[in-house]
Amino acid sequence: MELCRYLFGRFKEAGVRHVFGLPGDFFLPFFRALEEEPGIEPVILTHEPSVGYAADAYARVQGLGVAAVTWGAGALNMVNATAQAYAERSPVLVLSGAPEIAHRDPDALLHHRVKTFDSQIRVYREVTGAAAALDDPAHAIAEVDRVIDSVLRTKRPGYIEIPRDLIRADVPVPSRREPEIRPKDERAANEALAEVLARIRVAELPAIYAGAEIRRFRLHDKLVALAEKYGLPVATSLDGKAVFPEQHPLFAGNYLGEIGSPRARKVLETADCVLMLGALMTDVNTGMYTARFDRRKVISAVHEGVTVSYHRFPDVSLEELMDALLALPEAPRRMEPLPPPMPPQPIPTGVLTPDAIIAVLNRVAAGRSVLYTADVGDAMFASVELATDMFLGPGYYSSMGFAVPAAIGAGLAAPDRRPIVLVGDGAFLMTGLDLVSCVRLGLHAVVILFNNHTHGMLAAMDGPARSYELPTPDYVRLAESLGARAFRVRTPEELEQALGIALGDATATIMIEAVIPPGTYSASMQRLGAVVHRLRRR
Amino acid sequence: MELCRYLFGRFKEAGVRHVFGLPGDFFLPFFRALEEEPGIEPVILTHEPSVGYAADAYARVQGLGVAAVTWGAGALNMVNATAQAYAERSPVLVLSGAPEIAHRDPDALLHHRVKTFDSQIRVYREVTGAAAALDDPAHAIAEVDRVIDSVLRTKRPGYIEIPRDLIRADVPVPSRREPEIRPKDERAANEALAEVLARIRVAELPAIYAGAEIRRFRLHDKLVALAEKYGLPVATSLDGKAVFPEQHPLFAGNYLGEIGSPRARKVLETADCVLMLGALMTDVNTGMYTARFDRRKVISAVHEGVTVSYHRFPDVSLEELMDALLALPEAPRRMEPLPPPMPPQPIPTGVLTPDAIIAVLNRVAAGRSVLYTADVGDAMFASVELATDMFLGPGYYSSMGFAVPAAIGAGLAAPDRRPIVLVGDGAFLMTGLDLVSCVRLGLHAVVILFNNHTHGMLAAMDGPARSYELPTPDYVRLAESLGARAFRVRTPEELEQALGIALGDATATIMIEAVIPPGTYSASMQRLGAVVHRLRRR
Repeated sequence: MELCRYLFGRFKEAGVRHVFGLPGDFFLPFFRALEEEPGIEPVILTHEPSVGYAADAYARVQGLGVAAVTWGAGALNMVNATAQAYAERSPVLVLSGAPEIAHRDPDALLHHRVKTFDSQIRVYREVTGAAAALDDPAHAIAEVDRVIDSVLRTKRPGYIEIPRDLIRADVPVPSRREPEIRPKDERAANEALAEVLARIRVAELPAIYAGAEIRRFRLHDKLVALAEKYGLPVATSLDGKAVFPEQHPLFAGNYLGEIGSPRARKVLETADCVLMLGALMTDVNTGMYTARFDRRKVISAVHEGVTVSYHRFPDVSLEELMDALLALPEAPRRMEPLPPPMPPQPIPTGVLTPDAIIAVLNRVAAGRSVLYTADVGDAMFASVELATDMFLGPGYYSSMGFAVPAAIGAGLAAPDRRPIVLVGDGAFLMTGLDLVSCVRLGLHAVVILFNNHTHGMLAAMDGPARSYELPTPDYVRLAESLGARAFRVRTPEELEQALGIALGDATATIMIEAVIPPGTYSASMQRLGAVVHRLRRR
Repeated sequence: MELCRYLFGRFKEAGVRHVFGLPGDFFLPFFRALEEEPGIEPVILTHEPSVGYAADAYARVQGLGVAAVTWGAGALNMVNATAQAYAERSPVLVLSGAPEIAHRDPDALLHHRVKTFDSQIRVYREVTGAAAALDDPAHAIAEVDRVIDSVLRTKRPGYIEIPRDLIRADVPVPSRREPEIRPKDERAANEALAEVLARIRVAELPAIYAGAEIRRFRLHDKLVALAEKYGLPVATSLDGKAVFPEQHPLFAGNYLGEIGSPRARKVLETADCVLMLGALMTDVNTGMYTARFDRRKVISAVHEGVTVSYHRFPDVSLEELMDALLALPEAPRRMEPLPPPMPPQPIPTGVLTPDAIIAVLNRVAAGRSVLYTADVGDAMFASVELATDMFLGPGYYSSMGFAVPAAIGAGLAAPDRRPIVLVGDGAFLMTGLDLVSCVRLGLHAVVILFNNHTHGMLAAMDGPARSYELPTPDYVRLAESLGARAFRVRTPEELEQALGIALGDATATIMIEAVIPPGTYSASMQRLGAVVHRLRRR
C-alpha cells in the first residue's frame, strides 16, 4: 500500500476531511496524492504559522487536525504554533516532507538544511508528545500508528517526517495493533468516587470549575448532564471558555481570580467544595495567581488523575470520574441557588470600548449559529463577558496571530456555524492576510478588529511605550483588497448596525474595524493591569 | 553594571545602531531600556519571522544583527529565520526574554511555556552556534561575551536567554577576556601559498569562483584587488551574488551549473585552475549537482581551511590565503581575455516575463545607489541576469518571506542605498504586511511584485497543481492600504515608466505589481525545471 494512502485512511477514520498545508519542494508528491484522494481536501494557506493555527483549531473542534509542510523552511516555521498546541493539549499531527533517503550523504548541502538531517526532529521532540522520522519502509506503518494513536490518546501534537522517496512508496501494512490501554482498576475508581461523593454530600455550596480538557476530551454533554443532575453552578477558565454553554442557567461566568467575572469569583470563592474538571492551574487561568482556592476544599480531575485535597488517585481519569458520578442513582444537590446574574450594563453611547463591543455582540449574535475565535489581547480578555457555546482562543500559551487562521480551521470543522473573529490590530498584522484564504474558501467569517493602534495588552500591563505603538494601515482598504466587505465603526450604534448587515449577509467575508481610543480597556484587562502592577511592585 | 547596558555597549562596539524586535511580556524591561539608550534604536516589526529576516539582512550588511523577542510565542516563532541565518552563515544574535528566575517552580504553568523551562534553549541549540541561558548573575557577562564572540568569529547565529529579573539587574563585569584565537602557523600558510601559486602559474585559463563567505567575512575589496592583480575572471554563486561588482570588466556571471549564466559556465568549466573563494557546494549553487568541477583543478578556500585537489590545509583560512596572494610581489596573469559578454537581448514588448523585468531594471537602475533583496522563486532565479553590487537573498537555505523584511534590515544598515525588493506573490503573502513598517520607518523601498498567481517555482519544477495556485488579492489596493504608492504594470514599457517614476520619487515607499502570465518563467528557472525533471525521472 502507498504510505500516503495509509495516512489518508487513518485521517478519514478519525473524521478528518481537510488537511491544512503549504506545499514545498520535499513534499510535493504528498500534495499531489492528496489532491487525488476522494473525501479529503488540501487547504492551502499563506504562511506556516497560519497552517499550524488552522490545524489546531480544526483539532479542537473535530478531534484531530493535520498540518502538512515541507522540510526546514516549512516545518521550522511552525514550531511556535505546534508548541501552542502542545501547551494547550490540542491533537495536531504535523507532517513534514524530508530529503530522499537516497540523497542523505552527510556532506550534502541540501537546501532547507540546518545542521544535520536530525536537527528538525530534535526540535520537534521539544514541542510534541510523539515524533517519528520514517527512515525505514518496513516499520513505517507501525511508526505512523504509534504517533497517531499517541495524538488521539493524549491530545498532544505528534510529528511524522516522511522522506520524499517514501511518500508514495509501497510499504508493508502489518495487522493493526490497537494501542495498549492500561487496564482500569475499578477499585481505584470506587475509592475515589466514594470520597468525592462524601465531600459533595456534606457541602452546602459545592460548585464546578471546568477547563480546557472538557473540550479536548469531548466531555461537553457529560458536563451539562453532571451539572444538571447535581444542581451545581459551573464557572469555566479562560482556556476552557464555552466548554459549558454560557446561556445555561447554571453558568456562573469565566473565573480568572481577581481578573475575570466577579460573579464567577463569588461563586467559586464562597464554595465549600470545588469540583475542578479538566482545569489547568496556569498563570492566566489563576488571574496571575490571584485565584483563591483552599486546597482542602478542592477536588481536581484531569486526564492524568484525580486529586482530592492533598492526595492523588493517579489511576482515575477525568472521564472515569465524570462517568461514575453520572451513573450514581442518587444525587445530592446544592442547597442554595446561584447568585443572580448582574443585570446587563447599559451600553454607553458615543465611544467604542472593548466591553461595548462584547455587549453589542451578546445582543446581536445571540441565538445565531456562530463560533468565536479570539486572539491574545483585549479581544480575549473582554470575552470574559461574551456569552457563547463555542469559543476558541489560546487562553494559556497566548501566542498572537491565532484568531484569523483559527476561524478557517474551525469554520471548516463546524460548517453549520459562522465564524466570528475577535482580533486586535497587533495580532491581525501577524496572520491577518489569511483573510484572503477565508474569502477563497467561501467561509464568510466576520472579523471584528479591535483597533487601538497599540499592543494594548502590553500598554495595559506596563504603561505606554514607543515600542508598543503599532503602524496604522487603512484596514478597510486592506480588507477590501483581500476580497472582504469592510466597515469602519467608531460607536456602539455604528457597530450594531454594521454587525446587523454582516450577520444578514451570508455571502461575504466581512471585516468590521472597531476603532477604539488608545488606552481604553475592558474591565477584565483593567483588572489584569492592576494585578500585574501590584505583582511587579513587590 | 545593568546587564542590558553591558549588552548595548557590546552592540555599539560592533557598529550596531538598530535592534529588531517585537516586545512581549517577559522582555518588556529590555525594550524600555533600549528606548532610553542613546545611539541604538528599537525597530519593531509586525511578526517574529520578519524580525529574524530583518536582523539577518542587517547582519549581512553590517556585520552583526540583533533580534529581540519574548519567550515562547516570540522566540519559537523565529526558529526558521534563525535556522536560515545559521545555514547561510549570517551573524545574528537572538535575545529572548524568559520568566523570572524567582518564579521557576517546575510545576508553575506560566504562559508561553511548552514542556520545561529548558525546551526553548534546546530548540535553539539546533539552529545556533552558541547558546546561553543567563541563570547566574555572577557569570552572566562571561556568557554574553562567549556567545557574542562566537557570533562575530564564526558568522553563525547565537542565542542568549535573559530572565526578566536579570535584564536590569546589576551584574559584576569581569575584565574582558579577549576570545582565544588559535596562533597562526606561518609555515602552514607558506606551504599552501607555494602550492596555490605554482598551480596558478602553470595554468593558462585560471578563474575565480567566489561565494557567500566573501560577504560574511567582508572581503569584497580584497577580492577585487586579487582579481585585478592576477587578471582573473570572477564568477559568483547565487548565495554569493554581488560579492564581486557585477559591472566590473572581470565579472563572468552567476554560476549555477546548467541553471545559471551560460557565460559563467563557459568560463568556469573551461578553466584549468579554479580558485574557489568562500564558496559552498550546496545543491542550489551547483545547479542541482549539474556543476562540472574537476577536483584535480580546484583550489577551495573557506573560513575553515584550504583544500587543494584532494588534500586539505586545515590551519589556513580564506582570508589568510587571500592576504598572502595579495602580498606577493609578482603575479602571474591569465593568458586569455574573458569571452565577451553576451549582447543584451532586446526586451520583448507587450508581455512581461521575469527576464524582461530584470532587463528593464538593468537599464533603469544602473548607476543608482540601490541594493536588492530577493525572495525565493523566480524573483531570485531571474536575478542571475541582474547586474548589481549589492544583493541579499537566501540563495542556499531558501526560506520564503525574506525579501520585504530584509529590505528593512539592509536599508537601515546601508542608508545611502535605496532598497529594491524582488518578491513573488507567494512570498509576499508571508511577510509582505511589513511594507507598513517600511513606510513607518521612511525607508522608501521599491517593491517589485512578480505576480504570477502561483507558487511558480513549484509549478516550474513539478507542473501545475491546484495546491500551487495562489489567492488573488488586489495588490495595488493592498499596498495603498499600507501607505505605499502603487502601480500595476503588464508590459515592459509600463514597467519602465513606473520604475522611472518610482526611482524619481524619493519620498515614498512604492510597490509595482508586475503581472506575469502564469507559466512564464525566466531562462534560469526554465533550466532549473528541466534539470529537476531529469533528476526525478532517473
